Parts: sequence; structure tokens; C-alpha cells
Amino acid sequence: MNESVKTSRGALDIALAYHRTWSQDAFDRAMAYIAPDIAVQTPAGPLQGGEAFRGFMGQFAATVEATELLAAYGDDARALVLYDTRTPDVPSAPGAELVTVRDGRITTMRILFDQLPFALAAGEVVPATAHVE
Amino acid sequence: MNESVKTSRGALDIALAYHRTWSQDAFDRAMAYIAPDIAVQTPAGPLQGGEAFRGFMGQFAATVEATELLAAYGDDARALVLYDTRTPDVPSAPGAELVTVRDGRITTMRILFDQLPFALAAGEVVPATAHVE
Repeated sequence: MNESVKTSRGALDIALAYHRTWSQDAFDRAMAYIAPDIAVQTPAGPLQGGEAFRGFMGQFAATVEATELLAAYGDDARALVLYDTRTPDVPSAPGAELVTVRDGRITTMRILFDQLPFALAAGEVVPATAHVE
Repeated sequence: MNESVKTSRGALDIALAYHRTWSQDAFDRAMAYIAPDIAVQTPAGPLQGGEAFRGFMGQFAATVEATELLAAYGDDARALVLYDTRTPDVPSAPGAELVTVRDGRITTMRILFDQLPFALAAGEVVPATAHVE
């Protein structure tokens, strides 16, 4: 497959290839689909660049025991993917990713997940009721 | 428009009509797109039926000051929508909804949002560091 064909793949194809690759315990290979200057919006704030993204998503991916792709849609420029994950601390942790793709790589990602079960599991927050008595 | 035409609308049309309606301060009218026996998965757990859904989503919708539709895709049976919301307590609270539609109404919804800022704002959880000193 020559480069012109490769780079003409739509955003959905790239988003799915990225998802398949990291969810098969191959986060390093999945980084091939991430632009070096990726701009990411996470629930905890913005991240800039591939290495920041690797620190965020790679760390999470390493804890994932199972993934299930729930839905994926897109067009040439953007894709929206919803998946579920299972981790030791959180049995069901779905994520949604809206990505834009340019030249076969993800250049922006808005990722959405529920931080609460992770923050509770990590002891970063505690239920207010735990301090009542 | 007769009933047969109305009920042939694809899932994306219905999901967008539902979104537009509730985000225009018309949650009661938006309930016209919700099946009475809707099955909902929320980050806090499952909900069953239109009245349970109204209690959950209607209460939230009443607090929303602004919405922005970020992406919406779908086909005849399912749609996936990502939007951002602004509420008094949480300046940016995006939500993702995967819905299935039958006969012009949403019969299942998997809704994803970050519970953490809402739980902090409501005092349901507190940062663990608040108890260090």
C-alpha cells in the first residue's frame, strides 16, 4: 500500500485502528496513530503533545483487563468512539473519544470518562458521609 | 406528515431532535422522544422507565445554562452524540449518549459523563487532602 493510499484512510478507520491496537496491549504501537503535536482535552484538563498523551493514556491502558467497543462512527475528518473497559479498580469504565485525523494520525482528541470511581479507588476523594459519625 | 413517515425517521434524527428540545429548556417536550419503557445506563447505575429517566435527566437539564453539540453520528437504529454543557456548578460538563431508537422513540440510552465535579460541588465527596492537616 503506497503512502497516498495509506494517508487517505478516513478518520474512523484511524480511530478504530488506534483503539484496536491499544486495547490489544500494544500501546506503543498505537502511538503510531497519534500525531506528535496532538492536542487532548481530558476530564482533568488539557494535554499537549504525544509524550504527555503517552503518560496519560498509556498508563491507563496498562491497567486495562478487557475492552468492549460499543459504537464507532465517523467521516473523513472526525470520528466518535464509545467503548467500555474493565480495570482492577473499576469493573466498568466507559470512555468516549472524539478525534480529528490528519494524514493518518490523530491530531486532536476530546476524551470523556467518569473520573469519580478512579478518584475513589485511588483515595484522592472520600465520601463525605465517611466523616459524619 | 403521516405516522408512517414520522416513525421512519432514523435514530440520528430522533437523537438530535431529543437533544435540541431538552437543550432549549423544553425537557417536558423532549420526553416525547423517550419510550415509556426506556432502559438507561448512567455512570451511577441503571434506570428503568420514562419517569425514572425524567427524574434523572430532567433535573439535570433544569440546571443547564448552555449546551454545545460537539458531534453526532448514527444510522437507522443507533446514534452517538457528544455535547458539552455549562451548569452553575460545573462550567464544562460534557456528556456522551449512545441511544437506540424504535418507532421514533429512544428505547435505550447509555449516558456517560464525569460524575466527579458534580459530586465535589454537591459535597458528596471531598478531596482526601482536605483532611491531611
